[in-house]
Amino acid sequence: LKAEIITIGDEILIGQIVDTNSAWLGEQLTLLGFDVFRKTSIHDELNAILTTLSKAEQEADVVIMTGGLGPTKDDMTKPALCQYFNTELMMNHDVLKHVIQIFESRGREVLETNRLQAMVPANCEVLFNHNGTAPGMWFNKNGKIFISLPGVPYEMKSIIENEVLDKLKKSFKLPHIFHKTVLTQGIGESKLADIISDWENNLTREGLKLAYLPSPGIVRLRITAKGDNEQFLINQVNTKVEELLNIIPNLIFGFEKQTLEEVVGMLLVNNKLTISTAESCTGGYLAHLLTSISGSSNYYIGSTIAYSNQVKIGELLVNPKDIEVHGAVSEQVVKQMAVGALKKYDTDYAISTSGIAGPTGGTATKQVGTVWIGIASKNNVTAHQFVFGNNRERNIRMSALTALNLLRKEILKNIV
Amino acid sequence: LKAEIITIGDEILIGQIVDTNSAWLGEQLTLLGFDVFRKTSIHDELNAILTTLSKAEQEADVVIMTGGLGPTKDDMTKPALCQYFNTELMMNHDVLKHVIQIFESRGREVLETNRLQAMVPANCEVLFNHNGTAPGMWFNKNGKIFISLPGVPYEMKSIIENEVLDKLKKSFKLPHIFHKTVLTQGIGESKLADIISDWENNLTREGLKLAYLPSPGIVRLRITAKGDNEQFLINQVNTKVEELLNIIPNLIFGFEKQTLEEVVGMLLVNNKLTISTAESCTGGYLAHLLTSISGSSNYYIGSTIAYSNQVKIGELLVNPKDIEVHGAVSEQVVKQMAVGALKKYDTDYAISTSGIAGPTGGTATKQVGTVWIGIASKNNVTAHQFVFGNNRERNIRMSALTALNLLRKEILKNIV
Repeated sequence: LKAEIITIGDEILIGQIVDTNSAWLGEQLTLLGFDVFRKTSIHDELNAILTTLSKAEQEADVVIMTGGLGPTKDDMTKPALCQYFNTELMMNHDVLKHVIQIFESRGREVLETNRLQAMVPANCEVLFNHNGTAPGMWFNKNGKIFISLPGVPYEMKSIIENEVLDKLKKSFKLPHIFHKTVLTQGIGESKLADIISDWENNLTREGLKLAYLPSPGIVRLRITAKGDNEQFLINQVNTKVEELLNIIPNLIFGFEKQTLEEVVGMLLVNNKLTISTAESCTGGYLAHLLTSISGSSNYYIGSTIAYSNQVKIGELLVNPKDIEVHGAVSEQVVKQMAVGALKKYDTDYAISTSGIAGPTGGTATKQVGTVWIGIASKNNVTAHQFVFGNNRERNIRMSALTALNLLRKEILKNIV
Repeated sequence: LKAEIITIGDEILIGQIVDTNSAWLGEQLTLLGFDVFRKTSIHDELNAILTTLSKAEQEADVVIMTGGLGPTKDDMTKPALCQYFNTELMMNHDVLKHVIQIFESRGREVLETNRLQAMVPANCEVLFNHNGTAPGMWFNKNGKIFISLPGVPYEMKSIIENEVLDKLKKSFKLPHIFHKTVLTQGIGESKLADIISDWENNLTREGLKLAYLPSPGIVRLRITAKGDNEQFLINQVNTKVEELLNIIPNLIFGFEKQTLEEVVGMLLVNNKLTISTAESCTGGYLAHLLTSISGSSNYYIGSTIAYSNQVKIGELLVNPKDIEVHGAVSEQVVKQMAVGALKKYDTDYAISTSGIAGPTGGTATKQVGTVWIGIASKNNVTAHQFVFGNNRERNIRMSALTALNLLRKEILKNIV
């Protein structure tokens, strides 16, 4: 079964934005068992949309489009869909109610352009958009499925997850596919491949597939089995995962779509533990990750972002002499920062960071990317040094993820 | 003049990597004055490549391909190019010398697969790859140009910059094109379209194009002019931008690829001002945005993330009675938080946030998405209420961007 993804919008063609939608959609469709054979990006123009749809219809079983559904004059996708599916726009009253509700709940006036969002081609099924005003649309033309979605990523994703995936499974006879994704932190792709090479060779010999999905600080390993007998596939994959847990127990922090901040959050809440942070180089990003989880107020108390040395000394009670002698990026300082936060916020654990995020600020003895991380609990304080790269954004993210994983291991050590 | 970009490789189709090459190429070609009318991603398969090339030839003047040039058996791009341009592979001795040099300089043996990198279709011009072993290739078929490049981004980019751009300028009579992007914060796409509709109609009447590029909290407006007289286009666009600055002066925070945190950072550093934050609902994200800028230690001092009421009271000196009477999400509390941070960190400005990020935590009187933002300076403290949506991540980002823009306007008010 073949699938094509069509993204519509000048901003993609002229490179003003990177098209992350089509990557995400490609992954979702592949996981369902479709062969994504083409992705096409085109102008938001009537003729471009019509000829691309017609070409897609010849080759694809499923076509997913994103973009071109805004309320402004330059959005041509809905007129093109009407022409292609030989129909006209009509008002969908459920969508209109939803649009009005969204605006009223925000205390904002509903303009005519907003109301137009509820106009959809008469022969489509509406895919409800909980997160925005532009609905998704599902067309069935002689058994071929065409889906049009808004281009805003979080709106598009929620429609796919809540409305589209199950509907596609029901519409096509897809092969059985079973995936499991294992999440690792603290090791690069090449080194990981080296450590698990025997395991990987066995896996390939059994007809399974392994994909390395690296991102800064985290490497995801996706194991895929395809076949007729679903239970057999599940058992096969689970056996391989159990083997892997014995080979690299400390590197694996979770599975599937979990995030490290989610895993750490659950560990804290399940053990009735609290956390605070004392951040220099991560500048609040560590607190942001922890508080990005709904319900984090159950375990996250507060933090001090101690960017200047004055704040490290005044707020976290770091000894100024240690900063002078060892520098702010040192074992001594991160240990005192962690202990300072632990006491100030009266938490069970505290994490601290101090490093040279870059791209400038390196010295002869401490290069850009050097980061110290401290972990304090009631009876213990440890510090760990890392050297990441030259990219500021990446260093901040690597530092925060590494800190969360150190915390995770420290908690596990203490509760087991 | 029309251009198509073709990216070749399964890893793009299945969403294993996000295709940043085509975004970058789209920008380069657009800046040259080409109309990038399509981007296509396909499997590394002979037939897929041949049919895509043939379709491109019908519509495009320039076709740029990336990927599929590796030395392994599953890379089909070179065989496909030979078949399409009716030629055969032959050894290019300059490229071979370069390949051997690269391997010898790394102390590695040159394998047969590496030597094969120097085999190119007999009727192409070689585009030298300083950063890698796979050369670029330039084909001229009846005045239409086909360019094939390696998929590794930094190799591809250096071939484009060093070999391709000038060659394209010499090969085509390109129109002049001029873009300007105006960045707005604090208004949704629909409402903005409504306010500037007269201006937009005039712009369209003058033959210019306007694109709305919305993202959570920020709407970018891109104005494009195309024609023969470069200076005329620049004047035309600049006049429209000046008009816009008179219509929505407070909503515009910058231009082109600036970020709000960058603009605020420059404003702070240029006026020798310092900043601290007192964050509840943004949980460190505001501090993270401020410190994501290299050199932010010149103006960013520190922050208190006051997630619990205890921390608001103990660290920021919020009156517990006010929390009891008005709630933590209130004008009284954010004002005291901002003043607390201003004093604690001894900064010129302090920003505070307190809100219900959601998705849970709403009450009868305060719904999810309600956010109070406070701004304190030496002589003044103000508070502002907003109601965003139900999505936690989005609410946090909207709150932080809104806070930065409030700060920007407050600073401007005080220094002008």
